[in-house]
Amino acid sequence: MNGTVNFANSYPSENDLREAHQRITPFIHRTPLMTSQMLNELTGAHLFFKPENLQKIGAFKIRGALNAMLSLDSAVLANGLATHSSGNHAQAIACAAALRGIKAYIVMPHNAPKVKVSAVRGYGASITFCENTPEDREAVVARIVAETGATFIHPFNHYGVMEGQATVAKEMIEDSTEPFDYLLAPVGGGGLLSGTALSAHYFSKNTLVIGAEPEGAADAVLSLQSGSIQKAPYVDTIADGLLTYLGDKTFPVIHKFVSEIVLVSDQEIVEAMRLIWERMKLVVEPSGAVTLAAIIRHKKLFEGKRVGVIVSGGNVDLGNLPF
Amino acid sequence: MNGTVNFANSYPSENDLREAHQRITPFIHRTPLMTSQMLNELTGAHLFFKPENLQKIGAFKIRGALNAMLSLDSAVLANGLATHSSGNHAQAIACAAALRGIKAYIVMPHNAPKVKVSAVRGYGASITFCENTPEDREAVVARIVAETGATFIHPFNHYGVMEGQATVAKEMIEDSTEPFDYLLAPVGGGGLLSGTALSAHYFSKNTLVIGAEPEGAADAVLSLQSGSIQKAPYVDTIADGLLTYLGDKTFPVIHKFVSEIVLVSDQEIVEAMRLIWERMKLVVEPSGAVTLAAIIRHKKLFEGKRVGVIVSGGNVDLGNLPF
Repeated sequence: MNGTVNFANSYPSENDLREAHQRITPFIHRTPLMTSQMLNELTGAHLFFKPENLQKIGAFKIRGALNAMLSLDSAVLANGLATHSSGNHAQAIACAAALRGIKAYIVMPHNAPKVKVSAVRGYGASITFCENTPEDREAVVARIVAETGATFIHPFNHYGVMEGQATVAKEMIEDSTEPFDYLLAPVGGGGLLSGTALSAHYFSKNTLVIGAEPEGAADAVLSLQSGSIQKAPYVDTIADGLLTYLGDKTFPVIHKFVSEIVLVSDQEIVEAMRLIWERMKLVVEPSGAVTLAAIIRHKKLFEGKRVGVIVSGGNVDLGNLPF
Repeated sequence: MNGTVNFANSYPSENDLREAHQRITPFIHRTPLMTSQMLNELTGAHLFFKPENLQKIGAFKIRGALNAMLSLDSAVLANGLATHSSGNHAQAIACAAALRGIKAYIVMPHNAPKVKVSAVRGYGASITFCENTPEDREAVVARIVAETGATFIHPFNHYGVMEGQATVAKEMIEDSTEPFDYLLAPVGGGGLLSGTALSAHYFSKNTLVIGAEPEGAADAVLSLQSGSIQKAPYVDTIADGLLTYLGDKTFPVIHKFVSEIVLVSDQEIVEAMRLIWERMKLVVEPSGAVTLAAIIRHKKLFEGKRVGVIVSGGNVDLGNLPF
């Protein structure tokens, strides 16, 4: 864990974001901006949802994976990609590699949900199971990289990934007729939130960026308060995409460009998730509903404002729903 | 039941469809055309989904209701609208009337699902409960119309409604880069299917229109075969939006312009519904998944073809799912 804030100008530039967007545009869906009169009435805000559950692989993660991959030389790419993830980043790397016709080596904990394992396998990736500890999964990935020459793509602490995730907000800003007062993104490791903050910084100066985080994984809010990367006091949340803490590439960007991180409870997440299913007819995962949950809980902050809301993904097990 | 085929040119004209679209465009979502690589691979066809579950009220029915309403004089409108429906048309009339600021009188069977009753009530409509028979619900509507002067808008056997539903296919044709080989719509009373057929006839001459119908409500396939309106041999299907038989306005148009009606089982409907939830991240109701079920069952017919697929609605009770 790197506890110092790095204010070096090493984070992606405006031009890096533009190039990333050009690089991945042929391979992704340009998801629409959606509105819901009912949810506007419920919140008193003007909400513009970006349904990245409708994105390829069912989540925004394909953007970062594609951009990271397409930034590599062909000779390097030929050895394949490697990562550790039990979630959407695993599918994203597997899908990106399949598109390019190269190998993907995915390290997953042996107790990963079967649906996620079979989704990754569906893209033809090679799966190696590990113990469910950071130490073991990093050791297993390191061994695979040494053996195969594959390039490791970190799930979030990677500028290429950050640039790719930034294209979500970039599209929202481009597709909105007026600037947003706020842009909301969920925060786990901070890849999406840091990218969102960079897009607002470069393309929509007067838009404030807010992160939404589960109470049961409240590391980012502490990190922002303390000025250094913190772990969560405890980890227990239904939003299984948001369990990790920030990295030494995502934290400085978030520290510099994100105005606030707000917390929501699991009950609020499930209620927001149900609202999105019932009212917007979108299948979203708990991590994807954290932003709407934040708007409902912190109603006063958003009332009367124009708010861009990232709905990050929709990969849930229909056989195991919280309602 | 009118058993004769009326070939009179009394059905809506090309210009009627254009005017209907202009009339309702300010009040509806222009839903996108969506693709799914996985479903293309599964079916061997090039599928273009029109997700009308993302439409206002969660179904295409708002289009017909709005067009029927907006075609009426202000003086007539002042007395309100009336209809009988336990489904999406009830919500559509209630929503349209609320937009206009007039009264809506909705007749629903006393055993209608609570979620549907409360959705209609949410738009401020006046609900009158009736016995669950065609005779009683028509008698109750007739009494309300006599007492209030409200205008009765039939759920499907109404040219204004047909024109409104035709705008679904009209948008698909406009938004597609190449003509479709096939357009698929579900068929209940035939409002959507007849409208789809008219749009193909006027705006995409070489596109064949196919209706998809549950085996447990197989009236339209028999009607098309026999040349007269038939009732289903038995009625038992999970696709609760498709239980009715054709009307004397919808049948002649379907007879003239629809090339085929194909059947699907309830099991196929549920499997298709689950695929759309899991792979496209869209909440669809059973009636909305009948078209994909038809493509999967009749794979040979659609293989290699460019197929427009109407996903008609997404109003389901999340507490009572078939999976």
